Amino acid sequence: MGSQWEQFYLIHSTPPDFEEKKKEIQDFCQHIDPERNIVLVTSGGTTVPLEHNTVRFVDNFSAGTRGSASAEYFLEKGYVVIFIHRLKSLEPFVRHFMGQKFLDILEVQKKEDVTSIMVKNECVNSVLPILTRYKLTKEAGDLLCISFTSLTEYLWLLRAACECLTPFGSRAVLYLAAAVSDFYIPSNEMPIHKMQSEAGPPTIYLKLVPKMLEPLVNIWVPNAYVVSFKLETDDELLIDKAHAALNKYKHKMVIGNVLQTRKQRVVLVMPNTTNEIQLSSEEMEAGLEIESKIVADIAERHNLFMKGASYNS
Amino acid sequence: MGSQWEQFYLIHSTPPDFEEKKKEIQDFCQHIDPERNIVLVTSGGTTVPLEHNTVRFVDNFSAGTRGSASAEYFLEKGYVVIFIHRLKSLEPFVRHFMGQKFLDILEVQKKEDVTSIMVKNECVNSVLPILTRYKLTKEAGDLLCISFTSLTEYLWLLRAACECLTPFGSRAVLYLAAAVSDFYIPSNEMPIHKMQSEAGPPTIYLKLVPKMLEPLVNIWVPNAYVVSFKLETDDELLIDKAHAALNKYKHKMVIGNVLQTRKQRVVLVMPNTTNEIQLSSEEMEAGLEIESKIVADIAERHNLFMKGASYNS
Repeated sequence: MGSQWEQFYLIHSTPPDFEEKKKEIQDFCQHIDPERNIVLVTSGGTTVPLEHNTVRFVDNFSAGTRGSASAEYFLEKGYVVIFIHRLKSLEPFVRHFMGQKFLDILEVQKKEDVTSIMVKNECVNSVLPILTRYKLTKEAGDLLCISFTSLTEYLWLLRAACECLTPFGSRAVLYLAAAVSDFYIPSNEMPIHKMQSEAGPPTIYLKLVPKMLEPLVNIWVPNAYVVSFKLETDDELLIDKAHAALNKYKHKMVIGNVLQTRKQRVVLVMPNTTNEIQLSSEEMEAGLEIESKIVADIAERHNLFMKGASYNS
Repeated sequence: MGSQWEQFYLIHSTPPDFEEKKKEIQDFCQHIDPERNIVLVTSGGTTVPLEHNTVRFVDNFSAGTRGSASAEYFLEKGYVVIFIHRLKSLEPFVRHFMGQKFLDILEVQKKEDVTSIMVKNECVNSVLPILTRYKLTKEAGDLLCISFTSLTEYLWLLRAACECLTPFGSRAVLYLAAAVSDFYIPSNEMPIHKMQSEAGPPTIYLKLVPKMLEPLVNIWVPNAYVVSFKLETDDELLIDKAHAALNKYKHKMVIGNVLQTRKQRVVLVMPNTTNEIQLSSEEMEAGLEIESKIVADIAERHNLFMKGASYNS
């Protein structure tokens, strides 16, 4: 029979472009100095299709703000970053130029029959630091971005990435910020074609997604520093649910956040301590991002953890 | 009691920022020469929240490719365009620079202590025509972009935009390319907080969304040239369903397309004729977009329709 998580991978075979993406992760990791610290950041929501030829799906709210910002701060702290993100959700660096903004900062210049396109003078100061960090990161080969859409794609990529991280032992951080669906419709219970409204409104029967934190912590990356997230809309449930998750999966940290206040306040819940991180209104106004504080805190604890890990080994 | 569509607006009150967006549309339309042709393009999918504090929602597959490309071609044909689109779906012009592409085309130049950021020489030829058309459109004030996320927001904006288009009579085209949900959960049957997985997997009971084409064609914009879309995954259903919609709502055209082939082939279904539009493989390779052909065809038919309309009035 096997456990529920094994069953999931048995029933839901690999998505079409999985092998290419897996190879990309493998190739990337093989070229990383094994003495470097490395983090897997997951980001954005997963979809749960309601039809095989998918027109409709259940989605999880997530623009990818937390994940994409955190990836930048991990790079600043010297980490190599594997960024597994929902297709079209926010990505590191480019997240600063969404929507029409990009075209608005450009202007055309003509000098002696030569046409060039420039970033407007008044925008250079804000674009330059981001562009510079982006180009340095790219040259150094420190960032790999891989996209997913569905829950199944996400879960296959998560396992593949973990397998590539095993050799890094305690140097690996898992920062699981993706908003992964708790529910899904098993492949064999899904209609082939778009549901027809003439047949009347459908009722959708969902099943629970197996918790992949269990094999992840115990089997895939047993020596890594694993951080998961818990998003609630009800503040009162948050800390209890974070502790329950830590007790169950025995990983290092649950970052609890409430939908309405998630950009100002999070609570890092660990087995023996908690640390509340907040932005003051002055910090908010100055454009500080809470992810810079979260990542700084984790990098420090990860550093201590690695020392502990090497004492023990 | 009122009809089903009236009921929907009664039960689902206006979304938070609706009045601001409505005013933007009104102000925009008041400054348009009443002799201009104008099109309302809707684009992208609507969400149907599963919780009031929305973490999960049912979504419709749509990146906004059809709508955003068509908006550009309507502008080329001299139309004023109101573009009502799903937040973060593709938008006219900027759609050509998604993902990391934007940062990759920029380079830093230092000359005598002056730092400037340029579009790389080899990219100028591809960026210039798009940037030029974007800037001309903006200067002329011919394009208004307004975003929605949920089904309710979409339906309120659709009605508000139609009211602003009434004075344009037969000069108005409605090009309803948005992928609007057929199903929803009524506000009063939705839980307040995030559904808890401990309670076991939920079952989602959906209701049918009233078809707004009915009041739109009969009451809101009775003189306009209305084009709706039908997306199926099953080719055999397509033409019959398109004709059924035309018979029911008495509008001008249904554009039928099949999910898997929608970028190469569509069928324009009208009461007395159909016109199949296809891209040859040469045209695909040359980067031609099927929306240029669709919009050219509609602009021509709309022109004839306006002549007929003015003969009759």
